[in-house]
Amino acid sequence: MPAEFTMRRRVQFAETDMAGVLHFSNYFRLMEELEHAFWRSVGLTVYLRDREVHLSWPRVAASCEYYSPLRFEEEVDLTLIVNKVGETSLNYEVDFRRGGERCALGHLTAVCCETNAGMFAPTRIPAEVRTRLEGGVKE
Amino acid sequence: MPAEFTMRRRVQFAETDMAGVLHFSNYFRLMEELEHAFWRSVGLTVYLRDREVHLSWPRVAASCEYYSPLRFEEEVDLTLIVNKVGETSLNYEVDFRRGGERCALGHLTAVCCETNAGMFAPTRIPAEVRTRLEGGVKE
Amino acid sequence: MPAEFTMRRRVQFAETDMAGVLHFSNYFRLMEELEHAFWRSVGLTVYLRDREVHLSWPRVAASCEYYSPLRFEEEVDLTLIVNKVGETSLNYEVDFRRGGERCALGHLTAVCCETNAGMFAPTRIPAEVRTRLEGGVKE
Amino acid sequence: MPAEFTMRRRVQFAETDMAGVLHFSNYFRLMEELEHAFWRSVGLTVYLRDREVHLSWPRVAASCEYYSPLRFEEEVDLTLIVNKVGETSLNYEVDFRRGGERCALGHLTAVCCETNAGMFAPTRIPAEVRTRLEGGVKE
Repeated sequence: MPAEFTMRRRVQFAETDMAGVLHFSNYFRLMEELEHAFWRSVGLTVYLRDREVHLSWPRVAASCEYYSPLRFEEEVDLTLIVNKVGETSLNYEVDFRRGGERCALGHLTAVCCETNAGMFAPTRIPAEVRTRLEGGVKE
Repeated sequence: MPAEFTMRRRVQFAETDMAGVLHFSNYFRLMEELEHAFWRSVGLTVYLRDREVHLSWPRVAASCEYYSPLRFEEEVDLTLIVNKVGETSLNYEVDFRRGGERCALGHLTAVCCETNAGMFAPTRIPAEVRTRLEGGVKE
Repeated sequence: MPAEFTMRRRVQFAETDMAGVLHFSNYFRLMEELEHAFWRSVGLTVYLRDREVHLSWPRVAASCEYYSPLRFEEEVDLTLIVNKVGETSLNYEVDFRRGGERCALGHLTAVCCETNAGMFAPTRIPAEVRTRLEGGVKE
Repeated sequence: MPAEFTMRRRVQFAETDMAGVLHFSNYFRLMEELEHAFWRSVGLTVYLRDREVHLSWPRVAASCEYYSPLRFEEEVDLTLIVNKVGETSLNYEVDFRRGGERCALGHLTAVCCETNAGMFAPTRIPAEVRTRLEGGVKE
C-alpha cells in the first residue's frame, strides 16, 4: 500500500493574483511543501548531506489539473500519495481538496542526484530513504 | 500554420532556490510571461474589459518536463506555439532553450471565462481574440 | 498595552535562493502572513466586504533589518506588535526569532482604503476593526 | 557623482495580488533585478568566484515607501543610485517611476561577505568591484 500523507494549508494573500485566486504556479509550491512535510514525517529531509556526497532531487516532470479555484484564506487539504519509488526516481500524486471537493490534482516526478559544484548526476536512491518513503516508517 | 512567438528572458536571483537553479515552479511563471507578451504582440491583453463582461483565462491544466537546469543570469529563449484555439479553450506549448539546447518543455491549457463577483463561467472565445491568436494578427 | 500575536513558521524550499538562505523579499511575505493570522485571531479578515464598500489595506511603508540568515526547514517564531492604530493607518512591528535569537526585525505601515474599480481612497478605520486590533478582542 | 542605472520593467500577472496591484513584497524583487542588471552593466556579477573564496552580498536592511500602486502590464522606470560604497557595505536607492510619476522609493543595504559552507563572514569589498560600482566603469 502506498504511503500517504495529508496536511492542511491556508491560501495566503501573496499567493493570489489579480483574478482573486491562488495563482496556478503556486499549486506546485504547495505540492513541494507537502512533499517536504511528508519527508520530515518519516524522519528524512530532502537536504541530505551524506559524507562528501550531497544528494538533491531535481524534478523531471510536474503537472497539475485545476478543477475549482482556491481563494484567499481558504484551507486546502493536501494529500500526497507515493505512486512509485523507482531505482533513481520518485513519483508523487497530490490531491487538493476543500471540504471534500477536489480542487486540483497534481503529479511530480523527481530524480535522485548527486550534486557537485552545481552539476547533477542521477544516482540510486539510498536504501534507507527508499524504505522510509515506501513504508512510511514513522519516527 | 500555428502562431509562434519568441522572447529572451534572463533567470533572476530570486527565482533560484538553494539547489542553485531556477525553481521548478517558476517555469510556469515564465510560460505565463511569454503568453502575455504574445498577446500584447497581437494587440491583446488577457485583462479584457468588454462592456459589463469581464473575461478571464483560468488554467485547467499545466505541465512541464525538465531536461537541463537553468541558472542565475542565464538567458533562456522561450518560444510559444499556439497548439489549439477551441470553442472555449486555448492550448499552448512552450519551448525553453539555452543556446539552442532544449532545457524544458511546457504545456498550458486555459479556458475563456466570464468572471463576476469572483465566479468563473466558461464562455466562447470572442471572434476577434480568436482571429488574433490564430493568425498572429500583428498590430 | 499593545496587542501581540505570535506564530511559528517553517522556512520552505521555494523561499530560499541560491545563497542557501531565505530570500530577503520573503521576510515581507512572512510579515503579511503573520498579520493576517493575527486578524483572524481577533475575528477579522483583511478582505472585508461591508455593504457596497470594499475595504483594502495597501502598504505605505515596509522595512526590515536582517541580523542572521534563516535556512530551509528552520522554524521561526514571528511576533507581531501593533504599534499604532491611527485614524486611517496601522503600524506593526514584527520580530523574527529562531530559538530566542533575533534574526530580523520588520516594520509595516498600512492605510485603510475604500477600493472601487481598482482605485484606493483613504478612509477612517471602522470602529469595530480598531477595537479588535487594539484590544486583541479574541473570538 | 554617484553611479546611476535605469531600466524599464513591466509588471507581470503573477506579481499582482487579489487587490489588483503589484504585491508590496515584489518591489524588493524589482530592486534586486535592477541591482543585478546594474552590476552586469559595469562588467560584474554578484555571483563572484574568486579563487577559493566565494563572495556573497546578504542584505542587512531593506525598505520601501509606496506612493501609487502599480498594475498589471504597466511599465515602471527603475533608477538605481549608488548612495555609498563603504569598507564592507553598499547602499542603494531605487526610484520607481511610471511616466515620470514617483510610485515608490526603496533603499537597500548589502554587506560583502565570504561564504563558506553556508556561513557568511563580512570582508572588505574588493578594489575592482569598488571601482566599477563607484565609477560606473562601463565594459
